[in-house]
Amino acid sequence: MNEEILLKEALTAASEAKFFVNNLWLLVSTVLVFIMHLGFATLEAGFVQRKNVVNILFKNVMIISIGLITYYYVGFSLMYPGVNEGGFFGFAGFGLNPPDNGMTDAYANYTYWTDFIFQGMFAATCCTIVSGAVAERIKLGPFLVFCIFFVSISYPITGMWKWGAGWLDALGFYDFAGSTIVHSVGGWGALAGIIVLGARKGKYTEEGIKPIVGHSMPLAAVGVFLLWFGWFGFNGGSVLSADPKLVSLVFVTTSLAASAGAIGSYIVSYAMFKTYDLSMTLNGILGGLVGITACADSVSVSSALIIGLVAGCLIPFSIVAFDKMKLDDPVGATSVHLVCGIWGTIAVALFGNFEEGTGTLIAQLTGIGAIGAFTFTFCFILFSAIKATVGIRVTNDEEERGLDLGEHQLAAYS
Amino acid sequence: MNEEILLKEALTAASEAKFFVNNLWLLVSTVLVFIMHLGFATLEAGFVQRKNVVNILFKNVMIISIGLITYYYVGFSLMYPGVNEGGFFGFAGFGLNPPDNGMTDAYANYTYWTDFIFQGMFAATCCTIVSGAVAERIKLGPFLVFCIFFVSISYPITGMWKWGAGWLDALGFYDFAGSTIVHSVGGWGALAGIIVLGARKGKYTEEGIKPIVGHSMPLAAVGVFLLWFGWFGFNGGSVLSADPKLVSLVFVTTSLAASAGAIGSYIVSYAMFKTYDLSMTLNGILGGLVGITACADSVSVSSALIIGLVAGCLIPFSIVAFDKMKLDDPVGATSVHLVCGIWGTIAVALFGNFEEGTGTLIAQLTGIGAIGAFTFTFCFILFSAIKATVGIRVTNDEEERGLDLGEHQLAAYS
Amino acid sequence: MNEEILLKEALTAASEAKFFVNNLWLLVSTVLVFIMHLGFATLEAGFVQRKNVVNILFKNVMIISIGLITYYYVGFSLMYPGVNEGGFFGFAGFGLNPPDNGMTDAYANYTYWTDFIFQGMFAATCCTIVSGAVAERIKLGPFLVFCIFFVSISYPITGMWKWGAGWLDALGFYDFAGSTIVHSVGGWGALAGIIVLGARKGKYTEEGIKPIVGHSMPLAAVGVFLLWFGWFGFNGGSVLSADPKLVSLVFVTTSLAASAGAIGSYIVSYAMFKTYDLSMTLNGILGGLVGITACADSVSVSSALIIGLVAGCLIPFSIVAFDKMKLDDPVGATSVHLVCGIWGTIAVALFGNFEEGTGTLIAQLTGIGAIGAFTFTFCFILFSAIKATVGIRVTNDEEERGLDLGEHQLAAYS
Repeated sequence: MNEEILLKEALTAASEAKFFVNNLWLLVSTVLVFIMHLGFATLEAGFVQRKNVVNILFKNVMIISIGLITYYYVGFSLMYPGVNEGGFFGFAGFGLNPPDNGMTDAYANYTYWTDFIFQGMFAATCCTIVSGAVAERIKLGPFLVFCIFFVSISYPITGMWKWGAGWLDALGFYDFAGSTIVHSVGGWGALAGIIVLGARKGKYTEEGIKPIVGHSMPLAAVGVFLLWFGWFGFNGGSVLSADPKLVSLVFVTTSLAASAGAIGSYIVSYAMFKTYDLSMTLNGILGGLVGITACADSVSVSSALIIGLVAGCLIPFSIVAFDKMKLDDPVGATSVHLVCGIWGTIAVALFGNFEEGTGTLIAQLTGIGAIGAFTFTFCFILFSAIKATVGIRVTNDEEERGLDLGEHQLAAYS
Repeated sequence: MNEEILLKEALTAASEAKFFVNNLWLLVSTVLVFIMHLGFATLEAGFVQRKNVVNILFKNVMIISIGLITYYYVGFSLMYPGVNEGGFFGFAGFGLNPPDNGMTDAYANYTYWTDFIFQGMFAATCCTIVSGAVAERIKLGPFLVFCIFFVSISYPITGMWKWGAGWLDALGFYDFAGSTIVHSVGGWGALAGIIVLGARKGKYTEEGIKPIVGHSMPLAAVGVFLLWFGWFGFNGGSVLSADPKLVSLVFVTTSLAASAGAIGSYIVSYAMFKTYDLSMTLNGILGGLVGITACADSVSVSSALIIGLVAGCLIPFSIVAFDKMKLDDPVGATSVHLVCGIWGTIAVALFGNFEEGTGTLIAQLTGIGAIGAFTFTFCFILFSAIKATVGIRVTNDEEERGLDLGEHQLAAYS
Repeated sequence: MNEEILLKEALTAASEAKFFVNNLWLLVSTVLVFIMHLGFATLEAGFVQRKNVVNILFKNVMIISIGLITYYYVGFSLMYPGVNEGGFFGFAGFGLNPPDNGMTDAYANYTYWTDFIFQGMFAATCCTIVSGAVAERIKLGPFLVFCIFFVSISYPITGMWKWGAGWLDALGFYDFAGSTIVHSVGGWGALAGIIVLGARKGKYTEEGIKPIVGHSMPLAAVGVFLLWFGWFGFNGGSVLSADPKLVSLVFVTTSLAASAGAIGSYIVSYAMFKTYDLSMTLNGILGGLVGITACADSVSVSSALIIGLVAGCLIPFSIVAFDKMKLDDPVGATSVHLVCGIWGTIAVALFGNFEEGTGTLIAQLTGIGAIGAFTFTFCFILFSAIKATVGIRVTNDEEERGLDLGEHQLAAYS
């Protein structure tokens, strides 16, 4: 009898310990995904001109702040409605009011608040992807308005289709940590913004394409290393537990895909430009990371190397192609997040080890198409509406002088 | 019989696993709090003039080094005397000599060495707060002397009053992770330093207040993101275990207060200055973080949003007010750490969920007043004594040319 | 009977929880060691001239990428052959093909993939040490060739001698986290490179030694803080479990040695140069960290303070001595990693608490000598062969104009 009590105690203590460690890994991952916002901020700051640095920093500071708050009030309830399984849309109501202020266990491996804060960090990254692509010419206020609607409505609706047990999930669409759900969604938003805004003055001239180089390569490199650093939490945390086998496999596939992305981009850009191109190699790493994100938990390590290598090789071609189409993206966000996001989602079907019916090519293409169509349409309409009302682009004079003086009356360096 | 042995084994293994995970979270938090020193270093470096950058970096490098060593020899024994409960002062002796070199369990959730190193990181942060406020005019050697006495004597004595089970703890004063015990203590030290030192040359002229802008906004922004990053360990680790419910709640309250701080400062500074002021918004985030620190574990999420928002709104008013009083603080440390530290400590009484007798307004005000009076007096006397003996301020000529050449014969950039 | 099942369940759950937490700490350590690559990148970028910044960033980006991939294909199998105990050489074959794709438990405290990725991060750091020392004059392509052979062959062979249960391990040689196996190995490679390459133009002139100062002290300081940050994983993770007592002791010895290193270097460099020398103090921290690495788990805290202090004091003497020998090391890598690596390995014999026969002075000196002789010879031959074939040094003209324009056609700042 006494033994029975001790036995229950032992079982409780053991399962509690597992709950603690699983939850802890998600919290640590949250911290890692948080610092990706600094990664994006420094990457984008490094790749823009010296006169627009304060502006891009300001945007990134506001994105995480607005992102977390709007996701708290609206986004989380849209993405995880908890009803309407297999559906297109659901809403659990404004704000979060978990029973007992979240102090009751909500999930098997983590708490209610852990779930929210981990997901909230993801939501905000999505918007930072857009900020780089539309840099150096968008008005600050209107961009923040875009940010509010994008993070609180567009991102969570398409996210729900898969992660909220919606119709794409029912279809067998697979996207482990968000090659499509986070990265290509950001990429589609970026593309819509680029089209509505138009290119920077002087970029596409009659004499050809004029390169506008970034003002600080150290800042850009810091950004890429911090993004890789954070990706251990982005992909590793998406296991949603501290399961040693799965998390360690994800660490290896993620890191080797990033490495292979650097190599791929290095080789192709050297062949194309006959020089060791730092910004291409940096974007190659990011391309590899985006590419492996959809299937980091379900491919072999050698497949991960191939996926990363292909992603890296795509980067220089894609950046040149966007430029040829006169789609002006100062940081290469569309190539990294949209092109490699699509590639990674297709790679699921080519390399993934799944049960019958999951991650089929048809499911993957459906997911890519449906989420892309929704997001691009949403963002195009939203950007156009902003353009038609309050205006979206700074004046030519302000663009010339730089947004730092125009919008902030402050120089980045003095 | 055999079963009995297995049962004990299971119980031991389970409780060991919990001990491991609780201790691990404190160690990870230690790493996060450590990196706040880089956050302060880059924030302060970004906000000072180009000619004083090496000096501020040097100070921050020495602060963490001196801080850890003096805390090891004196501070820890003053802060946790282990005797004299409810008292004003106690001392466990010089240096640390735990039994069995710390290899015996000391606490329920972590080891002796974990406790020391986590607390040591906190102690050193306190002094970095001062370094920013007195930047650009204080002599290096005398500042390091201040640092030794501040970290090893002043900070641990007032810290003991609450965290070492002293008289404020007995009174019901509540300060979860140190809005008062760490941040306002740093702020009072900063204020004393500012008064004794006087303003930078040319700041307050007959024609009015001349703004002296920081030399690198990217460095300042890096600092704020790193501080937020580290705050997950500062507040999250202050739970003193990996308790999933409490740590995850702390993550949410801390992050949303930081976000609301940015929004609050953004709105008020836009209303005041009609521009998007990056440095105000950055300080708004820090204000929100300082504000929530006293009660991150004991308020609802919506209360956290209000606390952060108010803290953010206070920042621009406070910065303007200090300038009007001709109290020259190059980085805004007094506004962030002193003003928002006081606000956060009062917010405990307004928003906290406690048992009767804890966190009452009277207890909170007593804590703020007593710790403030002690710290300000201690620092004022210490700074004044240094001034009267070895001198505290660099020569006018050195201030003009910059401390980098004067004290270090090295330019930050070449 | 039912109880028997429950009992086994409890035992399994408890041991699983411990496995989870031990493995998690190694994964978190992996992330921390990863970011040391950013630490090295920014440290080296800060310490080189403005015209060679893109080049050093490019090298650091490629080192981690090449390092992980070659370690995956060759290095790991050389370092942990799993056969040939007590031997000089062994090879487990190209590439990694763990049974069941690594999904079977391989070790008591962590998985197969965790082991690989943690070790892989270590391997790559070794090569970054070299990159700083040969900066500002080595050709990029040839350096990457060196990198491939160094990480995949040289580093793992000597590493196996101790960590792969080779002959030095059998001899009682002790090197906890790699003062010799990682740091001095990097240092010997650096020394070989410096000798083969020769000094930078204009460094050693008839009028004496011309100091060539780094272009950005903030970048260098960021690097040192990030390295310290990562060292919590480098040393802490080398416990190879989350054992609370040992990991927390390692945190304390590591941090206090770093602090004492700063103090030691501060005092000696002030005595030598009569100024507060930031770069010396930064290198003092690194020296303290390298020094404690061999015995962070097996000395008392006061011994750690002495070890760090001595390491810090060695730094200014060593830097001056290398310069007198006309061995031109732009970042001081040989002083930090070679000199302090040797010191730390000797300190094991002086301060370590071991059983009879482990860490004896004779074993330590044998290890230092054997690993040094092998590594230096390997690297000297490799660098010389590269020099004799494809050439190793950029043209005088390119050195003058800077490698950023020469190799990358891109300026670091614009």
